[in-house]
Amino acid sequence: MDSWVDGQLAHALSLKDRGLAYGDGLFETIAVRKGTPILLDRHLARLLKGCQRLAINLDGAVVRTELLAYAQALGEGVLKLIVTRGESARGYAPDPVVVARRIMLGNPPATYPVSHAEHGVRLFPCATRLSLQPLLAGLKHLNRLEQVIARSEWQDAEHAEGLMLDQAGRVIEGVFSNLFLVRDGVLITADLERCGVAGVMRAELLFQAESSAIPVQIIDITLEQLQWADEVFVCNSVYGIWPVRAYAALSWPVGPLTRKLQTIAHALLDA
Amino acid sequence: MDSWVDGQLAHALSLKDRGLAYGDGLFETIAVRKGTPILLDRHLARLLKGCQRLAINLDGAVVRTELLAYAQALGEGVLKLIVTRGESARGYAPDPVVVARRIMLGNPPATYPVSHAEHGVRLFPCATRLSLQPLLAGLKHLNRLEQVIARSEWQDAEHAEGLMLDQAGRVIEGVFSNLFLVRDGVLITADLERCGVAGVMRAELLFQAESSAIPVQIIDITLEQLQWADEVFVCNSVYGIWPVRAYAALSWPVGPLTRKLQTIAHALLDA
Repeated sequence: MDSWVDGQLAHALSLKDRGLAYGDGLFETIAVRKGTPILLDRHLARLLKGCQRLAINLDGAVVRTELLAYAQALGEGVLKLIVTRGESARGYAPDPVVVARRIMLGNPPATYPVSHAEHGVRLFPCATRLSLQPLLAGLKHLNRLEQVIARSEWQDAEHAEGLMLDQAGRVIEGVFSNLFLVRDGVLITADLERCGVAGVMRAELLFQAESSAIPVQIIDITLEQLQWADEVFVCNSVYGIWPVRAYAALSWPVGPLTRKLQTIAHALLDA
Repeated sequence: MDSWVDGQLAHALSLKDRGLAYGDGLFETIAVRKGTPILLDRHLARLLKGCQRLAINLDGAVVRTELLAYAQALGEGVLKLIVTRGESARGYAPDPVVVARRIMLGNPPATYPVSHAEHGVRLFPCATRLSLQPLLAGLKHLNRLEQVIARSEWQDAEHAEGLMLDQAGRVIEGVFSNLFLVRDGVLITADLERCGVAGVMRAELLFQAESSAIPVQIIDITLEQLQWADEVFVCNSVYGIWPVRAYAALSWPVGPLTRKLQTIAHALLDA
């Protein structure tokens, strides 16, 4: 499907846009089913929180209206929204009256092997460590060189995702997913106050777990804790949940809480 | 002056470019005098080193030819070169045959107050700390949100630049400059193996100092060492050298080694 820039059909962006110059912006990757953007409120909430933290001047109501219209036209697929701070002259200081730019790109539905969800995946042990930057932690911003480098570490199809640690060796997330583990019935995911992307599916699963009285912990996770987990899975808002069967020398069965949450996630994505 | 993309007149870039999507690329900001790009070899060397580290497939000879032609057409001003990994489908993994894209933007000569160079500047104490990422340290890559946030910390004209520390509190660099200090006749600048941008003017000054038998140290710098410096200055390849007169409660005179190197830098930039 054709792309939109600020609500208009467009295929190109000004060379002076700060998204290109500095990665000065944010993005959202949204599953679209039957013309509906899935988990739209959570995507918008994260986007607007990011805009607030980066002082990007975006009209949330306009974005919502455009997302609904674009998704309607796309029908089935993946909608990528990029918001940049806008255009300005050379230099890091933005023009004080700069207005954010909205870019919508339509992609066909993601095609991952069905076995990823059914039988689980193996995670590649990425050597690339996430740097610590509390000012950017949690945001899905456009500065993604660490993920680009991490994803380049493996080419084989044996590994569906890679696991990233932070500079201190804590277990944080996948390259394009969040990570959960289950231990003694408790659902555990990494604290993302220093680095990482606070995924929309992660937020939804935490909400669903709390609604179902499943105990939740958001903590710093060590490799030892990962080793002793009963279940491990990764998630994102496009593919839902993949059970994790193996990481380096470690392995896990596909467990019951993973299956329970997977059913919930996939019901949302099959809406 | 009009912009070029891959050697052709253009004002816009594909929305699928990885420079926009992930900040997946590098840039150089080059002073141009009488149609000549100043310190061209050093800019090209840093760019190609960056391409090698990020595995970006760029033809150095083509870039050199284009830079010379663009500078000739620009005459006087600042040439900004952006190199992106190129275009690819959604997802961090690049298409293996992707070809880097070359973007050239022409700007008028920079207009800073003459007093910055003559009488020196005051540095704003930025609260934004540089994160540690050895994989990206030294490169002038497109992931520059830390600089955008740091530059937004002050708007007054009293501060010509800001000083950035790293997460461990070490003194690293300015927001758009490198920092040097002088102590007992030794020229000192920060080690940039963990973070920071290894500037072209910094490299040139280190070379000039060694050629003049001025002792040089590239080390971790503490705030205490800054306090006890005899002279402090910042530099980049557009404005040359600005003496630093003050930072927070600290102050320094404009010293003789600063003046000596400033004469060298400004001779290069007035070529």
